[in-house]
Amino acid sequence: MASTRIREARESDCGDIMRMIRELAEFEKLSHQVKISEEALRADGFGENPSFHCLVAEIIPAPGEPQGSLVVGYGLYYFIYSTWTGRNIYLEDIYVMPQYRGQGIGTKIIKKVAEVALHKGCSQFRLAVLDWNKKAVNLYKFLGAQDLTESEGWLSFRFEGEAMRELAGC
Amino acid sequence: MASTRIREARESDCGDIMRMIRELAEFEKLSHQVKISEEALRADGFGENPSFHCLVAEIIPAPGEPQGSLVVGYGLYYFIYSTWTGRNIYLEDIYVMPQYRGQGIGTKIIKKVAEVALHKGCSQFRLAVLDWNKKAVNLYKFLGAQDLTESEGWLSFRFEGEAMRELAGC
Repeated sequence: MASTRIREARESDCGDIMRMIRELAEFEKLSHQVKISEEALRADGFGENPSFHCLVAEIIPAPGEPQGSLVVGYGLYYFIYSTWTGRNIYLEDIYVMPQYRGQGIGTKIIKKVAEVALHKGCSQFRLAVLDWNKKAVNLYKFLGAQDLTESEGWLSFRFEGEAMRELAGC
Repeated sequence: MASTRIREARESDCGDIMRMIRELAEFEKLSHQVKISEEALRADGFGENPSFHCLVAEIIPAPGEPQGSLVVGYGLYYFIYSTWTGRNIYLEDIYVMPQYRGQGIGTKIIKKVAEVALHKGCSQFRLAVLDWNKKAVNLYKFLGAQDLTESEGWLSFRFEGEAMRELAGC
């Protein structure tokens, strides 16, 4: 039987990761915001001072099966800094291709992120989820996450484009 | 007349920053979550690979005034990575001491963050604000920020403590 493993992404995974970034943005109905390229991912994630780290979920075929291994999900994260608890992890993206959902692959990615966080001395990791994505909301809650927007009232704000340039006096 | 300037924090500002981190957490009614120390701030922000950057707002006395300069606010940020737009900035904390509010110091800090973001090739910066902190919400909106929780439905989730250790199998 085929098995799934979660491993660190390699530079050669960037084509798969870029494809899944687009799929995730489409699912989130926000794909017009995707401006990044595979080349940028390669440069930003796999150089000397990487701006992010990435895990991929890979289906390994059983011995004797003709097809090769297949990357079907990813979790992209980086280190952030809390002025209350120090260095932590932010899981920017987590995604499993629709036809591979319901097999616990998302949970495996989250477990791996928790392992990395503990290993790196972090006391927590954060992520953001869309309120209408009930399956994801329920999964994260089931796995023990706290909804800080609900419990403490945190709202997410962004400055960009013209507003940012005006602020900077450009 | 005294004037205000925004400058990069130095290691010797960590005492002031730590004091203001506590004041901000108290204002946010979340001070039980503050576990960090001044020593950790010094090590994490002012070593070889700093985990964060910090701006401070400083009141410079007019010539002839007897008192020295005074640090009355700060903005602590780090670089994050968007899979849509690449490297961006996250403004983790922004704070001005109560008796120095209403003079535009918070706006000055935000303008400086916008400058840094543009200078570093970032197309946006994000921050989080508590829904009941109407003054801050209104200021950020006035300065051009978008409330992504309102417009797109983003919720903020956190894994920590026992839940995280269980996930990691510890």
